Amino acid sequence: MKSYVKVSAPASIANFGPGFDTFGMALEEPRDVIELTLDVYETEIETVPDYSIPTKKNAAFAAANAIAWKNRVNSPFHMKITKGVRPGSGIGSSAASSVGAALAMAVAMDYEAKDEEIIQASSLGEKMASGSAHIDNVTASLLGGFTIVSSRNPVDVISIPVERLPKFDIVVTLPDVVLETRKSRSVLPRQVPLTDAVENISYCSTIVHSMLDRNIEKVGKYLNDAVVLPYRKQLMPWYDRVMKAATGAGAIGFSVSGAGPAVFAICIENARKVAAEMEKAFKAAGFKSQSIITKPGKGAEVLTVK
Amino acid sequence: MKSYVKVSAPASIANFGPGFDTFGMALEEPRDVIELTLDVYETEIETVPDYSIPTKKNAAFAAANAIAWKNRVNSPFHMKITKGVRPGSGIGSSAASSVGAALAMAVAMDYEAKDEEIIQASSLGEKMASGSAHIDNVTASLLGGFTIVSSRNPVDVISIPVERLPKFDIVVTLPDVVLETRKSRSVLPRQVPLTDAVENISYCSTIVHSMLDRNIEKVGKYLNDAVVLPYRKQLMPWYDRVMKAATGAGAIGFSVSGAGPAVFAICIENARKVAAEMEKAFKAAGFKSQSIITKPGKGAEVLTVK
Repeated sequence: MKSYVKVSAPASIANFGPGFDTFGMALEEPRDVIELTLDVYETEIETVPDYSIPTKKNAAFAAANAIAWKNRVNSPFHMKITKGVRPGSGIGSSAASSVGAALAMAVAMDYEAKDEEIIQASSLGEKMASGSAHIDNVTASLLGGFTIVSSRNPVDVISIPVERLPKFDIVVTLPDVVLETRKSRSVLPRQVPLTDAVENISYCSTIVHSMLDRNIEKVGKYLNDAVVLPYRKQLMPWYDRVMKAATGAGAIGFSVSGAGPAVFAICIENARKVAAEMEKAFKAAGFKSQSIITKPGKGAEVLTVK
Repeated sequence: MKSYVKVSAPASIANFGPGFDTFGMALEEPRDVIELTLDVYETEIETVPDYSIPTKKNAAFAAANAIAWKNRVNSPFHMKITKGVRPGSGIGSSAASSVGAALAMAVAMDYEAKDEEIIQASSLGEKMASGSAHIDNVTASLLGGFTIVSSRNPVDVISIPVERLPKFDIVVTLPDVVLETRKSRSVLPRQVPLTDAVENISYCSTIVHSMLDRNIEKVGKYLNDAVVLPYRKQLMPWYDRVMKAATGAGAIGFSVSGAGPAVFAICIENARKVAAEMEKAFKAAGFKSQSIITKPGKGAEVLTVK
């Protein structure tokens, strides 16, 4: 047993265009930092800055506890979560905290957890946060690079490490509006046209090939979604305007990050200009927004063990 | 202009598990051989052996004519099609003839056709043969290896050449029963559950990655289909029995070839045993069948130009 473990886990883009509940992309920035201390009197979770996340029984708590229970340990712990990833923005905030918490607990217990176990534990946190135990964000946040969920039950995942990906910038723009994943999921239909499903099958297959072929132009070209986006766009009336601004400024691909409201653009150059134009478009639609200029990044990392 | 061109074009497996209308795999064997002669008095198409394919206005005729019209040439031609690929069996018979015919006509006219043009011309033949201008078989037959249809309109396709694929055998078993593509398509629903569409998105993404990763075990494991097969299986009551026989004999993956009735199994070893057991299972279900033991192959080839 260790008494103190510090890890970091990145924000991530789920779906990444056509890969609903399947694709994920870890971002170099922002990251959550989780500090776990075991020798304490009472379990407590502290979030910095205070985003009004429940301080007990939140997603990170559920993920850490799942690992603890697996090891039949029920010891009080103190967890400090320094949130780099803004909650509710659509870039995997709860996933980053959950992955960091589960990984920190495993390391603290000297438990060599398989990736699948960390993902499964973290998905309990996702369920708590959004009502759905999807694993696309947690997979990306844990493994880094571009990730594919091959199977949900049992969990089976693939990561294309960041070194094997083409080089590109990602501009993520977060509007000042809350869109709960729970709500974003509620507008999805139970059935979709077969022809739309086939479109996404083509897009996804092409994107996986293009990632491994380091053809970022083609990734951008096929960053479409016929299956989910048409329904979700009704919750994002700004979508078309912001997309037009991004591509007009030189972005080679554009989509929603996860369940939104964040959107992201892929750029080879002009990232600053794309960010500025996306913010302008949000402003014209009545929303303030902030952009992050980043790129594909590594997964969760253990920073300190004592 | 050339007076004589001889080309060959391979059989192919469309869909290849989860990739409905998207994936294709060219087979090393069998192949159709197309001989085109231009300096003739009257257009005639001869098929050897005579499978009672219409000798005028068939799929190959439509494909060759589309290329001729594109060049504003309307000259009579003689075409001899030596059918290696049995029609109506589900391994891209009309596609092989159409691709061979279109390619032969382009070569005869000294026309450097783009792949997309040959595919588009050949898809007219597919439409004539099956009522649907799907391009998965023609893409595989033209380009060889494992192919992905990225977009249908405009046509945009990818080929992973056979040299980059993992090594494996393919056992194709053709039962003595006719199942028209037209009929196979008619049982498909217009809408499918979103969850099933997501399953296929996962399977397809995993298969593309595994092909490029040369991980044939994983290709076999994810050769599933939640979107089309459940509906088509009603036309193939033998399906589960034959699959069980194949996997029991050591096959690592199994699915329907295109719209059926042919089925195929992926093997690393034991291909002969798998073929024998699949034939036995068909027999037990009341159908004679023949197997072809082959592997991924090259696309259409120009053999002779005079």
